[in-house]
Amino acid sequence: MDAKRYQLVEDYMRRCMIDSAHDREHVYRVLYTALMIAREEPEVDWEVLTCACLLHDIGRKEQFENPALCHAEVGAEKAFRFLTDNGFGADFAERVRECIAAHRFRRNNQPRTPEAKILFDADKLDVAGAMGIARSLLYQGYTGTPLYNLSPDGDVLDGTGEREPSFFREYRFKLEKLYDRFYTRRGRELALSRRQAAVDFYEALLREARESNEEGRAALKALLQE
Amino acid sequence: MDAKRYQLVEDYMRRCMIDSAHDREHVYRVLYTALMIAREEPEVDWEVLTCACLLHDIGRKEQFENPALCHAEVGAEKAFRFLTDNGFGADFAERVRECIAAHRFRRNNQPRTPEAKILFDADKLDVAGAMGIARSLLYQGYTGTPLYNLSPDGDVLDGTGEREPSFFREYRFKLEKLYDRFYTRRGRELALSRRQAAVDFYEALLREARESNEEGRAALKALLQE
Repeated sequence: MDAKRYQLVEDYMRRCMIDSAHDREHVYRVLYTALMIAREEPEVDWEVLTCACLLHDIGRKEQFENPALCHAEVGAEKAFRFLTDNGFGADFAERVRECIAAHRFRRNNQPRTPEAKILFDADKLDVAGAMGIARSLLYQGYTGTPLYNLSPDGDVLDGTGEREPSFFREYRFKLEKLYDRFYTRRGRELALSRRQAAVDFYEALLREARESNEEGRAALKALLQE
Repeated sequence: MDAKRYQLVEDYMRRCMIDSAHDREHVYRVLYTALMIAREEPEVDWEVLTCACLLHDIGRKEQFENPALCHAEVGAEKAFRFLTDNGFGADFAERVRECIAAHRFRRNNQPRTPEAKILFDADKLDVAGAMGIARSLLYQGYTGTPLYNLSPDGDVLDGTGEREPSFFREYRFKLEKLYDRFYTRRGRELALSRRQAAVDFYEALLREARESNEEGRAALKALLQE
């Protein structure tokens, strides 16, 4: 890939994500992880893959401002327009668009091409393991979501079957369930090698939260009944 | 302790922390943990301890709005005023004030009374283990701090000796170093029992971040030199 073309696309990504240091960090991790995975996949167009990784989240701002929008769809269109406006061929831009449009978990739009499958896996790997835990917590700090909810009796709930948002709910509903949804061999291997770190953290946090809640609440109850 | 007096103090805490669900969660964990620790300490005034725990962070808002202020000092004064205005004796209010003023890591203001030592330890336990990791990440999501910084060559730095803020720097400078600073036996025991979860998470996150950064960056470099 020509270094000037890379720079052009990278600069556009950075302009689209100027407000979000975390999103930019994520984009580079996805790019590097995708290139790792691609080394073991046959028939990859590395330039399509590189552009798709750099641009896969450029629709985030639009979705944040209007949650009815899907950042994958918005980003796919923005990327297509940017690439065709900047001297990339329409066929090339179309292949990048297809990757970006299919990078979310959606039943009706699954990745079909090698590049789309690699982008999908690299993006999901950033929700796996300790990185997935860290990114969820960063986001929940930003949105003010609690770590856990309490039962009517005051017990710390573990997230299972809950409706109200919390970190534990996010873990149970999303982070815990992604490990069987990878399309590439290396993506799946990397995810499985990172899984235990996430399980261990969730269990340790739940244990810590419950330990003082149970014993301390009983002590408070006794104190108030004296 | 009289349940009505407890309710009065709890309500005041909730009014002071109305904007911050995370801070309120933290206050209850500190209260319950303090009551756990207190069961093994001699000569504790449980009512002083309970009020000090509930009110220890009520100066947070003032510090957030003006970082030159110390939330421990502001909170100590607010608590003293609230308690004396609401029928608690001046001696009682003074003992609560002392606990709150000494609950931060400060060389010139260390906890002296049993209640101040217990509050200090309970508050520090919420920075230990998986809970300390989770709370740091929530806060860094709120303030937009990155997970890690990169060297001039693009390597992921581990936080050691860095100046620029990041989660890894916070771990190295603060989270990793608190385990020998507890005043009570049970506080120290609880902290040590939670330590490994924090170490494991830090190491897993660093390993994940470096893994794709190193291999993927090399692959990108090769691609751009083709």
